[in-house]
Amino acid sequence: MATLNDIAKKMGIAKSTVSKALNGAEDVSEATRRAVLETAVEMGYTRRRGSQPKLAVFITNMEYHSPQDFGYDILIGFRKMAEPAGFQVDVIPLDYDMASTTPYDEFMLRENYRGALFLGLALNHPWISRDFARCKTPTVLYDNRISGNPNVTYVGTDNQEGMSLAVHYLKELGHRKIGYLSSALGAYVYQQRYLGFFQALKKARLPSSEALCGTAYEEEELLGYHLPRLIREEGCTAIVCSHDLLAIAAMEQMQEAGLRVPEDISIIGFDDIPLCRHVHPPLSTIRQNRTEIGKSAYCALSSQLEHVPLSTFLLHTELVKRGSCGPQK
Amino acid sequence: MATLNDIAKKMGIAKSTVSKALNGAEDVSEATRRAVLETAVEMGYTRRRGSQPKLAVFITNMEYHSPQDFGYDILIGFRKMAEPAGFQVDVIPLDYDMASTTPYDEFMLRENYRGALFLGLALNHPWISRDFARCKTPTVLYDNRISGNPNVTYVGTDNQEGMSLAVHYLKELGHRKIGYLSSALGAYVYQQRYLGFFQALKKARLPSSEALCGTAYEEEELLGYHLPRLIREEGCTAIVCSHDLLAIAAMEQMQEAGLRVPEDISIIGFDDIPLCRHVHPPLSTIRQNRTEIGKSAYCALSSQLEHVPLSTFLLHTELVKRGSCGPQK
Repeated sequence: MATLNDIAKKMGIAKSTVSKALNGAEDVSEATRRAVLETAVEMGYTRRRGSQPKLAVFITNMEYHSPQDFGYDILIGFRKMAEPAGFQVDVIPLDYDMASTTPYDEFMLRENYRGALFLGLALNHPWISRDFARCKTPTVLYDNRISGNPNVTYVGTDNQEGMSLAVHYLKELGHRKIGYLSSALGAYVYQQRYLGFFQALKKARLPSSEALCGTAYEEEELLGYHLPRLIREEGCTAIVCSHDLLAIAAMEQMQEAGLRVPEDISIIGFDDIPLCRHVHPPLSTIRQNRTEIGKSAYCALSSQLEHVPLSTFLLHTELVKRGSCGPQK
Repeated sequence: MATLNDIAKKMGIAKSTVSKALNGAEDVSEATRRAVLETAVEMGYTRRRGSQPKLAVFITNMEYHSPQDFGYDILIGFRKMAEPAGFQVDVIPLDYDMASTTPYDEFMLRENYRGALFLGLALNHPWISRDFARCKTPTVLYDNRISGNPNVTYVGTDNQEGMSLAVHYLKELGHRKIGYLSSALGAYVYQQRYLGFFQALKKARLPSSEALCGTAYEEEELLGYHLPRLIREEGCTAIVCSHDLLAIAAMEQMQEAGLRVPEDISIIGFDDIPLCRHVHPPLSTIRQNRTEIGKSAYCALSSQLEHVPLSTFLLHTELVKRGSCGPQK
């Protein structure tokens, strides 16, 4: 464990300067303060030595309190690995305003966290857009990829494989015109699934024109404009959705419009959220194993703490056949 | 550890049938033999219980005997993790003929291996093209990706990131016309680097026409036809190569033709093989940390043995600036 002395020695400055910089004293320049902070984080310095080491899980745009929530099992998986290894795990709802005024490394050092897992972060969050390209703190992002920083690891599921499983399955059922309905492509995970879907169509030698895809920010536009367009104008007999909640909404919308699922139209989601089993018909989907994601996120963070420069850590997906896909006659 | 009884019970057949099937007795049908074998592998059955568990490292198209060889450090890294964990590691030069007549799972069970790492495998190898899509043995492939089988993991470096580092660096040096020279795109890793190179050009808003790329099976064609074409016809002032050995050959070829590196033309490789330091000028390149690759391969295999369905495990790359790239005036 690095001490104030170690930091001072490495930087060739006085121990008192290091101490002042870390405590925000006014007679230290901003440049020195920043340099000391970066060195301290890089050397694994923590304020309260001897106390239990802490990891942070930052969470936003994701429910996690009940077993029905997407984040619940991820947190369980992470804790199952981190706590027996001696870490205290703090779950922190992520505050946009705090992040926009406080640099990430500074926050982590001040709060004495060794590393962090991020769940649900959007690409426009200040820590993503400003800090992660150069941060020194070991950091794991679920479903977000930062290129070029050895301290940041992307953990997720193999979206390309998942889309390939979905398209291959629908093709086996006889479908030839397969449409894609997706939330706006502002999130990394939706970009990956979108690319994976079209790659899979091409590999399966199925029609793959851009018109087969509908994306929008608003669910109203997806369900009210794109969904009917894909079915009536494009003649799609099966729809792949970027995530289960959208697939469930689309299924209800089609049923209200008098279409039978899967007799008239097949639909498949992505994620396998608990709700999939309870809708009518139960939703076929591509499964992300959330407990394994949590465990893998810990493994990745633990590798980072050992200075293994892990870039990407993806889990296999699994096709879950339920009632929402049927043969195309 | 699974026993003959466990396998018999799971399959609902007699223990004597399981025993016969595993020993290749003639009064068991091929279908039963195959089913027993798959179940046995899946359940982690090994013939000689109590003996030290064994892992195989299959190696082909890659030198590994001396510290100068690419495979040497990968093997060291793998052994450093596997042997203290109690595994015997056997390094096996891969025999194409044996593989074409013996199914992979069968070989592994017969030879009592729990899992394997593959180094240097080409996409047309029979175990890749025939067996890996469905194999039950925990398997890790370096630089090859098999989609859709939870028992197979791809370990490698983040080629996309590496190409982005190379292109960004050359752009910072003032280069605008950057060419790409690559071995034929039959290997997965060359496909990934090729895609990564053009993605990086587009992201950097540099010219990215297909004419900026030369690929071929024969080095003679790369150096004799494509390299002069990229420089004279396309006006490239910098060349990115798919791997160091090619970059070194290209550098020598250009120097023989009277060009100065880096004053007249910059060149950068990929891999950071030991030779890069010893050529004139020393070759700038994108580093793969081979010891870490070996360690990561063991971590991935160990996760597979614990039934974590790991798909992809990539390490960060690192830009190594030496003497072969200079500013474009």
